[in-house]
Amino acid sequence: MHTLLILSRRASDYHALIESAHLPDVAITSTTDPAEAAARAASFDLAFGEPALLRQVMPALTAVRWVQSTWAGVEPLLDPALRRDYILTNARGVFGAQMSEYVFAYLLARERKIFEKQASQAAGRWDPSPATRPCGKQLGLLGVGTIGAALARTAKHFGMRVKGYTRASEDSADVDEYFHGPLADVGAAFASELDYLVCVMPDTAATHHLVNEALLRALPPRAVFINPGRGGVVDESALATALQDGRIAGAVLDVFETEPLPSDHVFWRMPNVVITSHTAALSVPSDIAPLFIDNYRRLRRGEPLQYRVDFERGY
Amino acid sequence: MHTLLILSRRASDYHALIESAHLPDVAITSTTDPAEAAARAASFDLAFGEPALLRQVMPALTAVRWVQSTWAGVEPLLDPALRRDYILTNARGVFGAQMSEYVFAYLLARERKIFEKQASQAAGRWDPSPATRPCGKQLGLLGVGTIGAALARTAKHFGMRVKGYTRASEDSADVDEYFHGPLADVGAAFASELDYLVCVMPDTAATHHLVNEALLRALPPRAVFINPGRGGVVDESALATALQDGRIAGAVLDVFETEPLPSDHVFWRMPNVVITSHTAALSVPSDIAPLFIDNYRRLRRGEPLQYRVDFERGY
Repeated sequence: MHTLLILSRRASDYHALIESAHLPDVAITSTTDPAEAAARAASFDLAFGEPALLRQVMPALTAVRWVQSTWAGVEPLLDPALRRDYILTNARGVFGAQMSEYVFAYLLARERKIFEKQASQAAGRWDPSPATRPCGKQLGLLGVGTIGAALARTAKHFGMRVKGYTRASEDSADVDEYFHGPLADVGAAFASELDYLVCVMPDTAATHHLVNEALLRALPPRAVFINPGRGGVVDESALATALQDGRIAGAVLDVFETEPLPSDHVFWRMPNVVITSHTAALSVPSDIAPLFIDNYRRLRRGEPLQYRVDFERGY
Repeated sequence: MHTLLILSRRASDYHALIESAHLPDVAITSTTDPAEAAARAASFDLAFGEPALLRQVMPALTAVRWVQSTWAGVEPLLDPALRRDYILTNARGVFGAQMSEYVFAYLLARERKIFEKQASQAAGRWDPSPATRPCGKQLGLLGVGTIGAALARTAKHFGMRVKGYTRASEDSADVDEYFHGPLADVGAAFASELDYLVCVMPDTAATHHLVNEALLRALPPRAVFINPGRGGVVDESALATALQDGRIAGAVLDVFETEPLPSDHVFWRMPNVVITSHTAALSVPSDIAPLFIDNYRRLRRGEPLQYRVDFERGY
C-alpha cells in the first residue's frame, strides 16, 4: 500500500482527478497547507504537488521515494541543502501548446500592428498602414525541449526560419539550424539576424543570466526578446539598458527575477516592454494529473518514470 | 505581338517584375493613371491591374481579350453595364497566409487577453488572471476557398474544431463539418456553438447581406465575428444591434459597406469592435506578378488560364 500526499493550491481538483483513475493500492491525503502536511509527513512514500509548497515539508517527508511536480520548474527542490535521495519527476510535454499560443499571440500582434491599429481606432482614424509578415523572419530559441519544439512547429507553420540553441540535443526537425557550446563562442552566430529571440530555458546554475549584455548586443536592433521561461535566465539590468538604448526593439516578459515584479521596477514604465505577470503557461489539473497517473502505473510495473529530473543538471 | 496595359498604383513595381521574367512577344505600357491609359486604350489586347482603376477604362479597352486582376475581389468589373466578352482572372491562392496571420493575431489576442494585460500594465498592476485557450473551441468559416482552407489549417494547428459553409465544395480536409444550402435552412446548425465566425465570402449578388440578423441570432453570446472578407456580405445595422445588445461578444472588422468607414459610423465608438481599415491581406506585387506571368505563359501555350472568374457567379 502506498500513501500519497497531494500538496497544491488545487489539492481538491487533483484529489478528484486521481481518485477517478481508480489507481490500485494507494491512500490519498490532499491539502493546500504545508503545515497540515508536515504533521503527518513521515507516513507518505509518494508526493505530488507544487515545488514551492513541497519544499517546506521536504525535510519531514523522510519516507518519500518519488515526488511528482505539478510544475515544469522545480528550482525550489534543487536547493543543495535538501535531500536528493528520491526520484523527482516534473511536468513536461503539456506546456508546449500554451507557450505557442502565448508567443505567437504577441508575435502576430507585433506583425499585425495590433496596438497601433487600436490607437488609430481610438482616434477615429482610418489607418491603412500595412501589416508586416512573419514569413521569412527568423526566430531563435534558447532551449529546444518539448516547449521549444512546439514553438518551432508553430514558427514553421507561419513560414519562419528557426534557430535553436541547446546543450546537445537536436530532436526537433522544425529547427533549421542548431547551435551548441558556450554562448560566449556561438552566441554571435546564433543571435545575428534574429527577429525574435524566445527563451524557454530552465533556471539552473548553468543558465543563470545566460541572456546577458553580450548576447543582447549580438541581436539586431529590430529584434524582440520574448521570455515565457524563467526570470533567472535573464540579466534584467542588461536587458533594461538594451531596451532603453534602442539596441533591441522590444521585450515581452512573463517571468522576472522577483515576482510579482516590484512596483518600482523600470520595466513597468518602458513603452517597448510588455508584462504578462507569469501567465504564459499554467499548470491545469486536467493536463497535469495524467502525468502522475501514468507515472504511478509505471512505478507499479517497475518501469522507469517519465520526465525524471537530474538534480545536478537541474532539469 | 501582345500589347499589355499595367494599370495600378504599383505600376512601376509590376512593370519591373514582369520585365524581369523576360516574357516573349509582349510590349508593356504601365501607368497609375486611368486617363493616360484611356488615351491609348484601343491598342491593348491584355490588361493587368486594379479592378477599380481598370473599370474606368474598360469601355475604351475595345481590343482586350484577357484581364488579370491584382486583387481577389473584382466587383468593379462585374457591373452588368460593362462588357463581359473577355477572360477575367483574379488573384487567388496568395492571400491565405496573410488572412491566417490576421485572423489568428486577433483570435489569439482575445484568448491571451492581450488588451486586458495591457491595461493592467498601464496601471502598474501585476495581473495573474489566466488566459484562455483556442483548443477545443469552434471556428466557423463562411466560405472555404483557398483563404478558408488556409484558415482551417491554422485552426487545426491550434486544436480548434472547424465548421465550413460553402455552396457545394468540400475541398479542405481541415474542415470537420460542412454545411450547404440556404443559410435560412442550415444557418442555425452552422452557427450554434461557434466561438468565432469568420467571413471570407466574395461579394456577389448571392452573398449580399448573408450575415444578417437571423444568422447573428443563431450565434452564442460568446461568439466573436471576424470579417476580413467583403463589407457587402454583412448587414451592418444588424451587426451593430447584435453587438449593442450583447447578443454576440465582439467583432473584428477589416471591411465595410463604405470605405473608408465614415467618421460618424457607430462602429468607431463601440468598445467590443476592432477596426483594421482594410489591411487584412494586401496585394503585394512580388506575390501577384507571378500570377500574371504564369497565366501569360499558359495563354501562349493555348492552355486554360488559372483563376478565371465566372461573371454570373461573381468569383
